[in-house]
Amino acid sequence: MGPGPCNPYPEVTQAFTRPLLGHLDAEFIALLDETCERLRAVFRTDNALTFPVSGTGSAGMEAAFVNLVTRGDTVVIGVNGVFGQRMCDLAARCEADVIAVEAEWGAPLDPQRLLEAHPNPTLIAVVHAETSTGVRNDLAELGAAKGDALLLADCVTSLGGIDVRLDDWGVDVAYSGTQKCLGVPPGLAPLSVSDRAMERLLKRPQSWYFDLQMIADYVTGSGARAYHHTAPISMIYALHAGLGVVLDEGLAAAQARHQQCGDLLQDGLESRGFELVPPPGARLPQLTSVRVPESRLPKSVSEADIRKELLNRYGIEIGGGLGAFAGKCWRIGCMGHTARPRNVTLLLAALDELLV
Amino acid sequence: MGPGPCNPYPEVTQAFTRPLLGHLDAEFIALLDETCERLRAVFRTDNALTFPVSGTGSAGMEAAFVNLVTRGDTVVIGVNGVFGQRMCDLAARCEADVIAVEAEWGAPLDPQRLLEAHPNPTLIAVVHAETSTGVRNDLAELGAAKGDALLLADCVTSLGGIDVRLDDWGVDVAYSGTQKCLGVPPGLAPLSVSDRAMERLLKRPQSWYFDLQMIADYVTGSGARAYHHTAPISMIYALHAGLGVVLDEGLAAAQARHQQCGDLLQDGLESRGFELVPPPGARLPQLTSVRVPESRLPKSVSEADIRKELLNRYGIEIGGGLGAFAGKCWRIGCMGHTARPRNVTLLLAALDELLV
Repeated sequence: MGPGPCNPYPEVTQAFTRPLLGHLDAEFIALLDETCERLRAVFRTDNALTFPVSGTGSAGMEAAFVNLVTRGDTVVIGVNGVFGQRMCDLAARCEADVIAVEAEWGAPLDPQRLLEAHPNPTLIAVVHAETSTGVRNDLAELGAAKGDALLLADCVTSLGGIDVRLDDWGVDVAYSGTQKCLGVPPGLAPLSVSDRAMERLLKRPQSWYFDLQMIADYVTGSGARAYHHTAPISMIYALHAGLGVVLDEGLAAAQARHQQCGDLLQDGLESRGFELVPPPGARLPQLTSVRVPESRLPKSVSEADIRKELLNRYGIEIGGGLGAFAGKCWRIGCMGHTARPRNVTLLLAALDELLV
Repeated sequence: MGPGPCNPYPEVTQAFTRPLLGHLDAEFIALLDETCERLRAVFRTDNALTFPVSGTGSAGMEAAFVNLVTRGDTVVIGVNGVFGQRMCDLAARCEADVIAVEAEWGAPLDPQRLLEAHPNPTLIAVVHAETSTGVRNDLAELGAAKGDALLLADCVTSLGGIDVRLDDWGVDVAYSGTQKCLGVPPGLAPLSVSDRAMERLLKRPQSWYFDLQMIADYVTGSGARAYHHTAPISMIYALHAGLGVVLDEGLAAAQARHQQCGDLLQDGLESRGFELVPPPGARLPQLTSVRVPESRLPKSVSEADIRKELLNRYGIEIGGGLGAFAGKCWRIGCMGHTARPRNVTLLLAALDELLV
């Protein structure tokens, strides 16, 4: 129950044991195509270039930025947590002029402030579900008013857990991770790129590994696929299976399960007097950020001790705070296969035993 | 029996099913540390920064170059196949002055020509085992005479299959892949960086994902590890297990097995009148490159048809030619768990059935 990785679905663990195929084998290419089609379904998009980048979630961020942002571009980035800061770091490495529009950690971003930050930015970038604070930042208002800018969304923690609608919301580039609400171990970064963004890809980014035009020759196209790099076959088996579980359950049903678990947990914590970090209306069900209940820690027991006890006595991992929230907050995930009411019941009962 | 991925060792497939741990879990960190220690054993190095990059083999190449090469650096690169060309492409994207020292495809590089190409290059880069041609390029002579330059080696296809001795040979940076002679599916790029190279890392490379100084804070160090990106846990389980198999067998014994299979295959092909691409003395046992026996193809049967028949009737994948060798050569791998004499016996017998 940390902020990710979640427990993988049993079908995912099983999929890792499939006989290994080559990356140019026709049977594997068919499985890859089906994986991309399933990703389109969970991203709610028709984007042709929708595929898993061969790296963990941050590799999706890097693939998105280095193909679209270059020296002198103006990039407006919403920052209300670690992952917004990380986007600023990367955009600055791409030598963009970065305009960081901040909100208090724990509060959502104000879309109007992002839209008013610059008259004509190259890109507006926002973290949909800020894993460091448990806050949801809304995208639809940005997509509707983005003008000529591209809209980029970090959907690492949102995809599969709450509504993500790239096409309806006008999101041009989105990336995610496998280890959150898709119920797959970490290792791939689902990425989707709109046709509008495809037209603006840099001709030759510094990155060879993440060069989207070269990769597109492998992952899309109808006939023989051009070899770029060797695909991580087993991880793609796993993602294919995880997406299968989500779509078999139904995307809406899977999201409802995440919501149910998040509500149970957040209600349980509030009824015990804990203070949730985000305000009502901006809380993620899949990632609950709660202030450490200092007054309820037993004498000479630290918040880290409580987390260690949860792990050692109950087999429950929860996350500590990141960045400005280190030592001050806990981050509790209900994602993927971990999003089961029984897990919430156990965690609340364990906290009752450990706290005073 | 393609040029990789090979079949994984059964212990590796099993390892994928281990319960998933978090990337900051103490038990996982211990397993990661042991994985790095095992990598040092197969790389024959004491380099502190030796770890699996979170991407496939080419991600290792990218991590090596983008942290060490910047605008205006002089980089001497040996080119006698696709993977040497790929290094030139990447070095040029880093805005280096690239001096490509070529040898005919199928022939090994001349170390003296590489050493004489420039009086004081930043970096000399060579592919140890050129997967596109089956040629071994020697490293020791370069390491002994490199002077102030760093020596970079692509060990994607060599590691585990033939001798790789980073410290003895004076190699400063080496990367590999998991899906060749280590017997693990693709998904990670083992990388090793000498202390000498660590001192020359760029302060702030464009790449955030491959920033080696940030990654070093996670993979090395003794106390709490600084979170950089979420490690691909399951792939690391798999690599840990594969390295365990190799080291249990004994690195020398595993290499001898690769040599035995390569000799069996190459003798078998030559005794049938096939022409091997590399000259004697430069042939890789784990990757045999052979000219397509045009005169022995049945009427109106192409080389691609033969490969398809091998796959469909015998369950054997072999690789076609890459780049300049497309349609002209076959590439046959005996790597990892696939390096078993019985597989060579079957392939030769199948070719006898399919050819005239």
